[in-house]
Amino acid sequence: MSLCEVPVVPVVHPAILHRHSPVQFDRDAVVSDVVVDTIVDAGRLAPSAGNSQPWAFIVGRRGDRVHARVVRHLVGSSLRWAPDASVLVVNLARVLVEETDWEYSEFSRYDLGQAVAHMTLQAMAIGVDAHQFRAFDRDAVASDFGVPREWEVTSMTAFGVAAHAAGDAPGVSRERRTRDELTWARDRGFC
Amino acid sequence: MSLCEVPVVPVVHPAILHRHSPVQFDRDAVVSDVVVDTIVDAGRLAPSAGNSQPWAFIVGRRGDRVHARVVRHLVGSSLRWAPDASVLVVNLARVLVEETDWEYSEFSRYDLGQAVAHMTLQAMAIGVDAHQFRAFDRDAVASDFGVPREWEVTSMTAFGVAAHAAGDAPGVSRERRTRDELTWARDRGFC
Repeated sequence: MSLCEVPVVPVVHPAILHRHSPVQFDRDAVVSDVVVDTIVDAGRLAPSAGNSQPWAFIVGRRGDRVHARVVRHLVGSSLRWAPDASVLVVNLARVLVEETDWEYSEFSRYDLGQAVAHMTLQAMAIGVDAHQFRAFDRDAVASDFGVPREWEVTSMTAFGVAAHAAGDAPGVSRERRTRDELTWARDRGFC
Repeated sequence: MSLCEVPVVPVVHPAILHRHSPVQFDRDAVVSDVVVDTIVDAGRLAPSAGNSQPWAFIVGRRGDRVHARVVRHLVGSSLRWAPDASVLVVNLARVLVEETDWEYSEFSRYDLGQAVAHMTLQAMAIGVDAHQFRAFDRDAVASDFGVPREWEVTSMTAFGVAAHAAGDAPGVSRERRTRDELTWARDRGFC
């Protein structure tokens, strides 16, 4: 089989192409347990170094107690828009081996990033938007939820339905480096 | 809009559900430039903290000079199967600000993980399998390709077509923790 001969031009998947990070969510949009389960499953199935699965998630849905506790720890810019999202997920990386100071995996954060990417793309594929952010008090979240010291509270993801005509984070360019800028030492013209 | 009322049960996207890491690739499968471009674009479009895009890729296709140079630095288990893959991609994380010892982004490896996850899922969506691995000599790759010191050679991804009936890495379980094990403090039964 030669993919050189595939007559159809491959395209970037719509979930990847149309993904963006809305800064305004529909505050009436509700997502069901099964939607949340599907998103968590997508992260659960991500690959990781030696199948170490160095990830965990605190999941709050707008209106429940977990959500109310998470919202208390938002700071700065995220306070304006994140509470309106249907779901707030705290993303945790397992950084230490239990009861030691040994690194759990050199790929803890890399693999957490993979799991969260799986979750955001899964969400997009079923019509749910996502916006990751860092504007919250890590220590307060860790303390409030009794996060064991071998876990790092790394990031949060807001999931929901982008409000009509919602823009992206102001002041942050969405431009990307070109393909040539980020691929090094590449030969061309092989087929 | 309430996603509670969506009559269709959402499912995990096939690219996520069926993704696995083959340890045997079809050594005759060739992927075209446009397939490689599409995979790189998927990584290029990944989100990152403040749009910092802390990623770069060295792309070698079986038969070209870059591939031959990359293969020289494989060690151990990857030597058995990775050279057969159609494409070998070295994944690099920007860890330092140029000419300083300042951290470029606390999310460098997390965001590289996201970009690589985008690439592997994009590949799956167009019929190309992927296997990430660490069994290579990082320093030798960095030296051979003149990687600037602010970049870390982090991982590699082999892309190609899984050989018929190819299994997964032997000795590594594919089992995942359950959804309940990895979601903490979650309320249930909201809708």
